Amino acid sequence: MPSRPTLFRGTLIPMTVLSRAECAALDAADPLADLRAEFALPDGVIYLDGNSLGALPRRTSERVRDTIERQWGERLIRSWNEAGWWDLPTTLGDRLARLLGAAPGQVAVCDSTSVNLFKVLTAALRMRPGRTAVVAESGSFPTDLYIAEGVAGAVGGVDRRLVSDASELPGALGDDVAVVLLNHVDYRTGRLHDMAAVTRLIHDHGALAVWDLCHSAGALPIELDACGVDFAVGCGYKYLNGGPGAPAFVYAAARHLGAVEQPLSGWWGHAEPFAFETGYAPAPGIRRFLTGSQPIIGGTALAASLDVWDRVDMTALRAKSLALTDLFMRRAEQAGLDTVTPREPERRGSQVALRVRTGDPGDGYAIVQALIDRDVIGDFRAPDIMRFGFTPLYLRYVDVWDAADALTDVLTTEPWKDDRYTTRNPIT
Amino acid sequence: MPSRPTLFRGTLIPMTVLSRAECAALDAADPLADLRAEFALPDGVIYLDGNSLGALPRRTSERVRDTIERQWGERLIRSWNEAGWWDLPTTLGDRLARLLGAAPGQVAVCDSTSVNLFKVLTAALRMRPGRTAVVAESGSFPTDLYIAEGVAGAVGGVDRRLVSDASELPGALGDDVAVVLLNHVDYRTGRLHDMAAVTRLIHDHGALAVWDLCHSAGALPIELDACGVDFAVGCGYKYLNGGPGAPAFVYAAARHLGAVEQPLSGWWGHAEPFAFETGYAPAPGIRRFLTGSQPIIGGTALAASLDVWDRVDMTALRAKSLALTDLFMRRAEQAGLDTVTPREPERRGSQVALRVRTGDPGDGYAIVQALIDRDVIGDFRAPDIMRFGFTPLYLRYVDVWDAADALTDVLTTEPWKDDRYTTRNPIT
Repeated sequence: MPSRPTLFRGTLIPMTVLSRAECAALDAADPLADLRAEFALPDGVIYLDGNSLGALPRRTSERVRDTIERQWGERLIRSWNEAGWWDLPTTLGDRLARLLGAAPGQVAVCDSTSVNLFKVLTAALRMRPGRTAVVAESGSFPTDLYIAEGVAGAVGGVDRRLVSDASELPGALGDDVAVVLLNHVDYRTGRLHDMAAVTRLIHDHGALAVWDLCHSAGALPIELDACGVDFAVGCGYKYLNGGPGAPAFVYAAARHLGAVEQPLSGWWGHAEPFAFETGYAPAPGIRRFLTGSQPIIGGTALAASLDVWDRVDMTALRAKSLALTDLFMRRAEQAGLDTVTPREPERRGSQVALRVRTGDPGDGYAIVQALIDRDVIGDFRAPDIMRFGFTPLYLRYVDVWDAADALTDVLTTEPWKDDRYTTRNPIT
Repeated sequence: MPSRPTLFRGTLIPMTVLSRAECAALDAADPLADLRAEFALPDGVIYLDGNSLGALPRRTSERVRDTIERQWGERLIRSWNEAGWWDLPTTLGDRLARLLGAAPGQVAVCDSTSVNLFKVLTAALRMRPGRTAVVAESGSFPTDLYIAEGVAGAVGGVDRRLVSDASELPGALGDDVAVVLLNHVDYRTGRLHDMAAVTRLIHDHGALAVWDLCHSAGALPIELDACGVDFAVGCGYKYLNGGPGAPAFVYAAARHLGAVEQPLSGWWGHAEPFAFETGYAPAPGIRRFLTGSQPIIGGTALAASLDVWDRVDMTALRAKSLALTDLFMRRAEQAGLDTVTPREPERRGSQVALRVRTGDPGDGYAIVQALIDRDVIGDFRAPDIMRFGFTPLYLRYVDVWDAADALTDVLTTEPWKDDRYTTRNPIT
């Protein structure tokens, strides 16, 4: 086990934490420590599933109550103007842009990740006439693959081509490839792509790069503009803490916004939506990626979360994230599990994937259920991944230590073999 | 002016209301009167814009607070199972189905009207291979026309064909027409189509019928199943009172659900979403019309509204609606305005469109602003429509009487010619 400290963007990552007391000392020195008080976490729970559904910011409920009772209830229709409802997708988008490394005017908060993906894939195909292939990794979050299929079926003559890994991209990037869709962080393994290098590779072959940021937005610093990314999508309810089914987001590089066309051309994306014309004319700028009316109540919850994000130094976030995941991986290995997530800091996001070293790979399901019963919440992704997300805004080093203790105990005493843990639920 | 009572579905519509006292007597006898207490209406406001954004149900805020603080905050990821979040689109759809005249299993609450329209138009085109035209009325709510354009552009070889009125349909229904998209109630004039007869006409020509119910769902009884409708869409935030940007809905007739394909094929519509397969296989039933993660907080607000709807007799609702609109139209005409909305009960929805009889047609904008300043809230739709919605759940006969008084006063004393009313806002 390495005992030297590792530098990441100038921040020291402690690699030699060997006790709970040392964790407490790290918490005391943590520049992000104050942010934990901004979340309404249930007592006693160690929440390692913020990569699936982020925790509740403390002020969200009050903010939503104001939107419902005052803006909607009292001011009614007038709030479309007064309260900025109509502009909410771009107001939120510009606030989110800092976390994505995007200059203002390129991000809209709207719809779901899947719907936004349909927009950008179709738009990208139109920008590369004559090229007919959409390339994606077979290990992508499935909705990406399903939407690529849907696009191929709708447009016609389009080929959805899968590669098993980004390392196969050089061979797959023929001159028929219009667009490559990649998951920045793999939803199961936590593997992080080198966005700059891969985008450059894609561009070198004349294709466009679409990045799915669902598992990286809010998990680490992102540099969409600097990497020359063409389009990106992502969700609001994981690391961004926008609440269940929060509106998602779409990014389109400014250089494309003058001419790009997307087929979900509803009235919210029209240049003059209140002229009620019969013909569609896209709004200038990112607003052309809007379709229909957007969820104002859900958008308000995301706004409350962005109030917290406004205070976050993304470099400090990344340093703590790497330290937390490193600590958990090392202790999980000591407890007898295999780490699936890459150990190199530059190759992982903010989550850890573990696998049983021996026995039935599906045992991971019951192990996770037994942990949940001890108030350590992670999740399981078929067929064999125990998945734990680490959110530096509200997780402490001692939480990670205690979670590792619970994991060790569950594995040692084997309570997870009980029927009540092995019986499958549809979702967890 | 007719003084005879008119029968509609066995309910007497009073046509001879001539005083505020008579209105008060009608309120005292109103079988829907109790429902007004279920809404949090601002003091002194007469809200005639529930056709644009429905009023706030009294219990919505508390219900949303529970979803945020307990389901999300306390139970976190577990609520996907425990609180029924995953099934919310179909749970809400089955509750909404009664208002639409649909048997269970055919309605999903999801996405926006525009997004749902893209799904059903594309699905319908695939069901009529060889037919390439989508027919719509030029006076449709514009997003319908824009989405039809978007579908035509994405699929290729598809022709969006406009008719100026449904009366032109017989001539337009050539054997190249795959699908006809119609607005059940016209968003400006309030004109109501005969859904049964028009659907029959469309089917007689081998095309499929898609109905946009945005301005009729919750405004009057609808009989989708009995009329043999193929697909329908509509929004949750107008008469349904689901709140700003509430999730919309999509209906697909059971007979189509075995084979129909829609291109926004995201993971929420997959047969086995948690198997994380690489290939798309649609869920059986209406769930295949889902795409990505759905807004749970917004869905909760709609659920609170459906608690009120569960108590509503739609026949009584329709009778009161017709009485309210009739009263307002007659008094507006006495005040010197022209009625655009059809006077025949079977040809109008639950809204009234008025127009100035002389002068600049755009004057209606300022008249509406002056009314809003007197707490009578309607809206204006370019170029010349003053639009007033009548929602029998929370409007009283005396409210309509008082609104007509205010309108008469504004027109008589001409305060609307003041600059502060004539200056345009982007949305109202």
